[in-house]
Amino acid sequence: MGARHTDREYEAELERLRERILLLGAKVEAAIAAAIRSVVERDSAMARATIAGDREIDRLEVETDGLCLRILARRQPVASDLRFITLALKLVTDLERIGDLAVNVCERALELNEEPALKPYVDLPRMAEAARTMVREALDAFVAGDAARARAVIDRDATVDAYYAQIFRELLTYMMEDPRNIYRATRVQSVAKYLERVGDHACNLAEMVVFMVGGQDIRHGGHRPEAGGKEG
Amino acid sequence: MGARHTDREYEAELERLRERILLLGAKVEAAIAAAIRSVVERDSAMARATIAGDREIDRLEVETDGLCLRILARRQPVASDLRFITLALKLVTDLERIGDLAVNVCERALELNEEPALKPYVDLPRMAEAARTMVREALDAFVAGDAARARAVIDRDATVDAYYAQIFRELLTYMMEDPRNIYRATRVQSVAKYLERVGDHACNLAEMVVFMVGGQDIRHGGHRPEAGGKEG
Repeated sequence: MGARHTDREYEAELERLRERILLLGAKVEAAIAAAIRSVVERDSAMARATIAGDREIDRLEVETDGLCLRILARRQPVASDLRFITLALKLVTDLERIGDLAVNVCERALELNEEPALKPYVDLPRMAEAARTMVREALDAFVAGDAARARAVIDRDATVDAYYAQIFRELLTYMMEDPRNIYRATRVQSVAKYLERVGDHACNLAEMVVFMVGGQDIRHGGHRPEAGGKEG
Repeated sequence: MGARHTDREYEAELERLRERILLLGAKVEAAIAAAIRSVVERDSAMARATIAGDREIDRLEVETDGLCLRILARRQPVASDLRFITLALKLVTDLERIGDLAVNVCERALELNEEPALKPYVDLPRMAEAARTMVREALDAFVAGDAARARAVIDRDATVDAYYAQIFRELLTYMMEDPRNIYRATRVQSVAKYLERVGDHACNLAEMVVFMVGGQDIRHGGHRPEAGGKEG
């Protein structure tokens, strides 16, 4: 903070950066929601549209990175502004990769939609909703500069992990019951795994927000379970 | 470039940053090699030691990030130095996540070592070597500032993906043959998937090196297969 902050143009640039990140976040959230609908409702057209829409997410990532670099070069920010911009550089990477995971879910949807339905999905949409909410909450915490809210996101990851474990166990029983289920069950397992990774990325976002707000690096401080703890 | 470069202290800081990244890369490479040995040689002690060693990788990530922020705040770099430092911020994130994947491999090794061996692993160590080499080559390209070398890393990802597809197909046959193989086969599949993701991270590193060298962003320009193309 300080004299620099009287510079309206600079403030406008920072505001624009914040907006770009939120727009990217909104697009990524929508991609997750559409991706899981393409699985649950067996909607291949939606899957293809979501895959095509990833270009826009990629474009926004590149644009936002460029904006960060321009601000760094021209404004030479310090202290909290510098933390904000350098972490924006990292946030966009995580957001773009969540977008890639939505694409991966859609690719599995296209494969699954070629085959008869394995089972009705009950936990999968709930898991997707939990993961999507984590992304939303992490970005809300980012906007509000609210470290407590960001920490709450990290706590919620246990729920997403528990969904994954439950879905994985159930899929194992389908696989053991009939070998003809195996291929499809591995596809569904991949979808659940992507959602679990969305939760991990949301944790990364939240940890960065805590750092931005407090200048405190909690990334490896034990506030979240060991990397990839339960897994399948 | 320019007058700033006559500042020896500044040059020493940039050199130190480069060294930190290479040290992080070397540790991550060693972690992958040890992780896959803990699977192939069924060595749980090695798996546990590798998991414990991830703390050092995490520590180096935080330290390197801090170094980047200090240089940005104190030196206010521009042009190629600014690109170098902002991309260092992203490189360390990918390197740290490769370290997490090595931990994940070790966790699966511990589970697999509790059970009788499923099969002798032939492709898995080759796949690990291919992925590890991609990481090494991406960092060599980074040190040399060699965009062509970085592009070659991206081309090699197809080999790692092909290994994954082959291993996945073979595991499916084990699963279909005998339901008692299913659980272990899903563990081995996870290991292969982690290695495939190591290859993806190496591609990310390589794309960043191309950007750093040329100021050209190829991240979404079609130089690599669609995100997560073939998958299981």
